[in-house]
Amino acid sequence: MVMRRFARNLIPRTKLLASVSPHPYATSSFSSPPNHILSPAAAFLLRLLSTTSAPDSMDSDYSSTPISIDSINPKVLACEYAVRGEIVTLAQKLEQEMKSHPDRQPFDEILYCNIGNPQALGQQPITFFREVLALCDHPSILDKSETQGLFSADSIERAFQTIDQIPGRATGAYSHSQGIKGLRDQIAAGIKARDGFPADPNDIFLTDGASPAVHMMMQLLIRSEKDGILCPIPQYPLYSASIALHGGSLVPYYLDEEAGWGMEVSELKNQLETARSKGVCVRALVVINPGNPTGQVLAENNQKQIVEFCKKEGLVLLADEVYQENIYVPDKQFHSFKKVARSMGYGEKDLSLVSFQSVSKGYYGECGKRGGYMEVTGFSPEIREQIYKVASVNLCSNISGQILASLVMNPPKVGDESYESYLAEKDAILSSLARRAQKLEDALNSLEGVACNRAEGAMYLFPRIRLPKKAIEAAEAVKAAPDTFYARRLLNATGIVVVPGSGFGQVPGTWHFRCTILPLEDRIPAIISRLTEFHKGFMDEFRD
Amino acid sequence: MVMRRFARNLIPRTKLLASVSPHPYATSSFSSPPNHILSPAAAFLLRLLSTTSAPDSMDSDYSSTPISIDSINPKVLACEYAVRGEIVTLAQKLEQEMKSHPDRQPFDEILYCNIGNPQALGQQPITFFREVLALCDHPSILDKSETQGLFSADSIERAFQTIDQIPGRATGAYSHSQGIKGLRDQIAAGIKARDGFPADPNDIFLTDGASPAVHMMMQLLIRSEKDGILCPIPQYPLYSASIALHGGSLVPYYLDEEAGWGMEVSELKNQLETARSKGVCVRALVVINPGNPTGQVLAENNQKQIVEFCKKEGLVLLADEVYQENIYVPDKQFHSFKKVARSMGYGEKDLSLVSFQSVSKGYYGECGKRGGYMEVTGFSPEIREQIYKVASVNLCSNISGQILASLVMNPPKVGDESYESYLAEKDAILSSLARRAQKLEDALNSLEGVACNRAEGAMYLFPRIRLPKKAIEAAEAVKAAPDTFYARRLLNATGIVVVPGSGFGQVPGTWHFRCTILPLEDRIPAIISRLTEFHKGFMDEFRD
Repeated sequence: MVMRRFARNLIPRTKLLASVSPHPYATSSFSSPPNHILSPAAAFLLRLLSTTSAPDSMDSDYSSTPISIDSINPKVLACEYAVRGEIVTLAQKLEQEMKSHPDRQPFDEILYCNIGNPQALGQQPITFFREVLALCDHPSILDKSETQGLFSADSIERAFQTIDQIPGRATGAYSHSQGIKGLRDQIAAGIKARDGFPADPNDIFLTDGASPAVHMMMQLLIRSEKDGILCPIPQYPLYSASIALHGGSLVPYYLDEEAGWGMEVSELKNQLETARSKGVCVRALVVINPGNPTGQVLAENNQKQIVEFCKKEGLVLLADEVYQENIYVPDKQFHSFKKVARSMGYGEKDLSLVSFQSVSKGYYGECGKRGGYMEVTGFSPEIREQIYKVASVNLCSNISGQILASLVMNPPKVGDESYESYLAEKDAILSSLARRAQKLEDALNSLEGVACNRAEGAMYLFPRIRLPKKAIEAAEAVKAAPDTFYARRLLNATGIVVVPGSGFGQVPGTWHFRCTILPLEDRIPAIISRLTEFHKGFMDEFRD
Repeated sequence: MVMRRFARNLIPRTKLLASVSPHPYATSSFSSPPNHILSPAAAFLLRLLSTTSAPDSMDSDYSSTPISIDSINPKVLACEYAVRGEIVTLAQKLEQEMKSHPDRQPFDEILYCNIGNPQALGQQPITFFREVLALCDHPSILDKSETQGLFSADSIERAFQTIDQIPGRATGAYSHSQGIKGLRDQIAAGIKARDGFPADPNDIFLTDGASPAVHMMMQLLIRSEKDGILCPIPQYPLYSASIALHGGSLVPYYLDEEAGWGMEVSELKNQLETARSKGVCVRALVVINPGNPTGQVLAENNQKQIVEFCKKEGLVLLADEVYQENIYVPDKQFHSFKKVARSMGYGEKDLSLVSFQSVSKGYYGECGKRGGYMEVTGFSPEIREQIYKVASVNLCSNISGQILASLVMNPPKVGDESYESYLAEKDAILSSLARRAQKLEDALNSLEGVACNRAEGAMYLFPRIRLPKKAIEAAEAVKAAPDTFYARRLLNATGIVVVPGSGFGQVPGTWHFRCTILPLEDRIPAIISRLTEFHKGFMDEFRD
């Protein structure tokens, strides 16, 4: 069991090469230097994705320009982001073709189940949030009589309050580099209401979605390829991409699929020790809770073990908590790592902890607004100054996103005019997501060779597919990973876009895909029947 | 003259140490390795900025946390961003103090002239732009009758058109990683209308302001400290910060203050050759036009020389053109580098050129919206795929910023209901900025020992101050750069916040500050009299 999880055996070769190299840990089992291996792999991927018909001559057309693919930053080449990778590029091409030849495909539309992007699939925004944003965008209508006919009274009041919190009432000005102080006050109050422990507005850094916050922490922590970050496998590829871009080493720890994608401290410890024995300085542990792509919700007791582990081993805990409001099962609850640590008696100076939150997820799903924040605790003022400085270089995050982040952490309350309708919208979205998760989970589990864990939270299912040997050989014949081969066939047959498991990492020899639960509920039966029909055909074609 | 400009003599020592080290070129004149020099300098700055009273014990309070200031990424430590640096931090403290002790200072308010943030100083947004943004934020009011009483007819029509361009009409969804295609079409059309040469929407990458676009290009081009980027001195410190964060070397070229901050190709050539002789691979040339902090507008002929230079020397041309609509003198005009290159007969495959544009500047000044784009031309499809991939990792820029970028490149036209009022708002802002620039320039030039070049464009003045020897000694006694000493005294006496020239780079032994022209016009006389009074007192105190 311990051996099975030994990192250098377990991360699939292509994954290691293309996404987390070059670093001494990951490449220790290979004989050639990573850059030499990397180029052909990257080149192959590029040929696959190329939009021109003569890929080999592409670069020569640009022979008089100074930069070639061989002379760009190799860290950029090494980075991979499958959520918008090959399958999505193919889907976009299909979609373009369908505009000119609508009858050429056996389906009417492309269904993007590759990404947690609820409103792209028809989810409607929460009315109250949009009312406040619109009023803040055009404050000069706030005191006009027609406005009262168009907007709820509490959205008008909230817009007034929000604008009052902005220095000079200037919604078009750069803010403080961490975000508008009054909005951070509201977010801190929201965290306190959620956790029962105080939060400091000076710990909040508002960012354009959670991704820039993750990059900032990686930039701060990673000095060279000898610095490692413990990441779950499977993981959300923002982490592997960010580690690659900043030139660090991804130190994998495996979630236990048999135990509902459980997180075992013994596995963390093994991987940490293996990495250390190879000279890697492990700086931080990434935990995604609820899990992406895996959908599990950690038990509080498990979280306590993780906190103890970070404390004992001197690791920064990077807690991706962007799905904190996406929980679909009655027996699980979200606990922030900060709440867990404080409830164990650990204070500000006992644990370095960063919690990431985003307006893109939850029941709001406002991906396009690019709002989010990180709550940074347990770092000395000297280091905080450095984080502030890096935030300052980009001046500030967008103000609409900042306002929205304050709204999701401080939504309408009992007694507010919008409260009932707000609650109805929220409950409708969350209960529908729970039903969709259950239906898709059941449907997947009914397919031959497919096993899907419970979708306790987040927005995804990550079923395992036991592919027949013939399918694996067919994939190898076209130089594709077997799960990519499956996903490509699924797309071509049904228009459904999923992300192959290899984009997230998986135990070698196992194959998965990630599929969101986000298509609108009335579409789910059709999706299930298309998926079921495709899968039967696929298995009939390749069954050993 | 040539010797005077020799880079290793000219970049001030502190600047080199703290902002563009470590790299072999910049540190060649120092005996110790850059990291050893860096730490005390950074530590000094931090002590200066520290908010605690016992700076030396700060870190020890956090002795049980894993990360110390000595163990973070040294590239982060090396980066500096003076626009939000020491003086601004002091100003924020003063502002806080004034809330509890309003009578303690000889002024009523802090005037932030440190940053190009027009709306923070009272500039009003363009009504049409805000109408469209508000309607796109809350599209469900689009077809209500009250809306017609509150919004202009063409803003309603434009909002309908904009939303129709968004797949699924989902303003809350992640977009294509480069931005919404229909909006890129509009931007490309706007570029064509501006330049008279076609633009391809596939060349446009929409970003959260221009800063992330600059970072993306630096990330792509810089492999190690042996890669250099030619940057103007003085420069906007985003460039030095971004080069430092990505671990490259800033190769300085000096603008000629005597010639109105002119850009001489002979100087470019000298600096390029010096860098190359030290083993630096120079990859790109940054040009800021109109200039920041220097305010000059390049002549077309000068731009042609620059294009030829990049072409001949194999350099990527990174053109910061965010002030393209901020021109205040009748004898100067903005020409984009793309237009200049195309008019010289250079096509897509002849020159690698990236143009940066932002909604934060111009007459719109919508800094808080974080909209912007880069137009990427002259890179092979293989490299374009890599830029696309890096953009994908952050998913997309915020949709409001994307919409606003499309609006500023496609504003109301003759015949539209809003056209007259739009034009009146725009002209009022630009003509007032021109008057303010002139008044401040005249006032500065009337001060003893101060010489200020013409503000032809952008939002800044960058006067040179000839400081008396006594003032320089007084600055050294408190371990401050003389221009920082001056700026600190100015702040304490008047509440006016400017940025010391050392934050932008300057010929050693010369001292400057950057001051925006953005305070509202009715405040300018008071600012001038406060500034004049302060300067007289300062000179009386320190005159040799």
